[in-house]
Amino acid sequence: VGGGQLGKMLLADARRMDIACHVLDPAADAPCALGAHQFTRGSLTDYDTVLAFGRTCHTVTIEIEHVNVDALAQLEAEGIPVFPQPAVLRVLQNKITQKAFYDAQGLATLPWQAYDSLADLQQAVAAGSQPLPFVWKSATGGYDGKGVAVVRTPDALEGLPEGACLAEQLADIQRELAVVVARTPEGQMACYPTIEMEFDPEANLVRFVFCPAQVHFRAHEKAYALATRTAEALGVVGLLAVELFYTTRGEVLINECAPRPHNSAHFTIEAAYTSQFEQHLRAILGLPLGSPALKQPAVMLNLTGEPGHSGPATYEGLARALAEPGTSLHLYGKAETRPHRKMGHITVVAPTRRQATRIARYAHEHVRVVDL
Amino acid sequence: VGGGQLGKMLLADARRMDIACHVLDPAADAPCALGAHQFTRGSLTDYDTVLAFGRTCHTVTIEIEHVNVDALAQLEAEGIPVFPQPAVLRVLQNKITQKAFYDAQGLATLPWQAYDSLADLQQAVAAGSQPLPFVWKSATGGYDGKGVAVVRTPDALEGLPEGACLAEQLADIQRELAVVVARTPEGQMACYPTIEMEFDPEANLVRFVFCPAQVHFRAHEKAYALATRTAEALGVVGLLAVELFYTTRGEVLINECAPRPHNSAHFTIEAAYTSQFEQHLRAILGLPLGSPALKQPAVMLNLTGEPGHSGPATYEGLARALAEPGTSLHLYGKAETRPHRKMGHITVVAPTRRQATRIARYAHEHVRVVDL
Repeated sequence: VGGGQLGKMLLADARRMDIACHVLDPAADAPCALGAHQFTRGSLTDYDTVLAFGRTCHTVTIEIEHVNVDALAQLEAEGIPVFPQPAVLRVLQNKITQKAFYDAQGLATLPWQAYDSLADLQQAVAAGSQPLPFVWKSATGGYDGKGVAVVRTPDALEGLPEGACLAEQLADIQRELAVVVARTPEGQMACYPTIEMEFDPEANLVRFVFCPAQVHFRAHEKAYALATRTAEALGVVGLLAVELFYTTRGEVLINECAPRPHNSAHFTIEAAYTSQFEQHLRAILGLPLGSPALKQPAVMLNLTGEPGHSGPATYEGLARALAEPGTSLHLYGKAETRPHRKMGHITVVAPTRRQATRIARYAHEHVRVVDL
Repeated sequence: VGGGQLGKMLLADARRMDIACHVLDPAADAPCALGAHQFTRGSLTDYDTVLAFGRTCHTVTIEIEHVNVDALAQLEAEGIPVFPQPAVLRVLQNKITQKAFYDAQGLATLPWQAYDSLADLQQAVAAGSQPLPFVWKSATGGYDGKGVAVVRTPDALEGLPEGACLAEQLADIQRELAVVVARTPEGQMACYPTIEMEFDPEANLVRFVFCPAQVHFRAHEKAYALATRTAEALGVVGLLAVELFYTTRGEVLINECAPRPHNSAHFTIEAAYTSQFEQHLRAILGLPLGSPALKQPAVMLNLTGEPGHSGPATYEGLARALAEPGTSLHLYGKAETRPHRKMGHITVVAPTRRQATRIARYAHEHVRVVDL
């Protein structure tokens, strides 16, 4: 369910192993429109569409959380394996239920407060019961830096979307980390090495991903422990990407989770013994998990649409990036670029993280996604 | 031109980089029927079919040598880039012109003698002018162990196909090696590390491929020198797979060449910074070559149809193989198995060649391609 770039990369591993895939996506030119055994155009959020689609499948999975979970639950009730399970999606689809779950399970996360509407939050700020500064997060619909805002003054709330939201304490963050864990129906788990993310300060988008993360080994231990405890608490089958804050005080706290392949682990295609996409397929299809260890360190650079450019996409500077050793190019096949839209990525694998970083930063200087 | 497993793996890298491919193959269920931007059913050896197909393309390449070269030459004359060039294919398509080329260029190869027909060869043996033993090779049509036979007695010639052939001196072979080299239109070259092949003694098929090869560094040097000199002499653009004999006397001699991605370098998908398929695309599309170095050592195991089994294919023991660390499965998507038919392969990547070898041999013990 979903035919974007995550689906496209999943299809690549499925095709390698000759696993037939049927994909549902509303866009005729979705990245998955090519390469699926069957491609159906349709809404991901419409009950009947998702139900009818799922009934054609042996096993159902998702590449995006914003789907009709009631339809998935019905498919599960009909005996069709659905991974991640609808119950897991219900918890994670909404940031309020997600945070409440962490608290209930004793999984370390930043203090927060839920509000039914933006107006309620504004009132609490005015009344002084909600201290400033904080991070506003929309309960639903957030992705790629949308649905999140740092609020330092009451004015900053103006213009934010209405609707249920939460206010999270602003942490003193040293690094943003992620651990991607795979879990089988029998509860076997495998964790990729801790990932470090570097954000584009303007777009609030991940610019670079580094693996392994350069943090104290105790931070690695805490990150693994938190990720595996979360996967167990959810009982998720398939991948769980756990985004983490590593604070200046040395705490490791859950930011948020996604029960699917994740941008932070795209580098595993080239750098790990088993890519996250193959690992997801292995987990949901009852195959043994593969080794999540690295062949070599890696850095990934997201290629996003240049601000100020919208329209048919073209790529500048690719040949310069590809001339550097260890660079692999992924273009998602999206016809149109828009500011900050994820259009592709470059993975750099090298014997040392330092060398991979140098090349990835060089590529970032030279590659631009612009309109024709 | 050609839609088999080599094409399927080429499509995977092309799709990753969003390069659109149009594939020609006679079989409706060819491995490339899925995943190509366009798939045309048609004969690879028919002049008009190949010409019409090529005229729809920006650049034309092949994944099999047995194609209509006259049509490719016409496309080249019309200004469409064709790589490998038709002139290269003409030399290599026929084993007699291929061996004559090596001799003319001073490229070390085993002594040989051409015959216009099997009858001529039989006559020469009877007359004593062709000493026994020797290796019979059909001038055309040989692949996957077909078109080659060791002849130790005159009787062994009985039942061999008619037609032009050559008799090659039987060498005292220590190892069979291969070097795959990529060459750009500007003459830039990049060699993968020397590959070592282990054959199934019964089927005369490659069973295992090891990289790096465990041979004296002088053998590596000779192998690289011979491969790059051959690529230069041919002026080939794209990949050239050079199969080599390493004799007990320490000589390195050309066995034969193929101007395309090659079974011996499938392991580069997982083990090298740049896969042979991406390297071929880079070379023929005017992109800079990628690094051919290894991330880690690798061993590849060909999965071929079990003798005595023909019909709809199924695979036994895959889960046991996949439970071992560093194993990657490739199934080519061929519906029917036949004895010794190439159905897929498993690549094992590990920190040491010894470890990869152990796992590959374990996989060979457990995986079987049989009929349903």
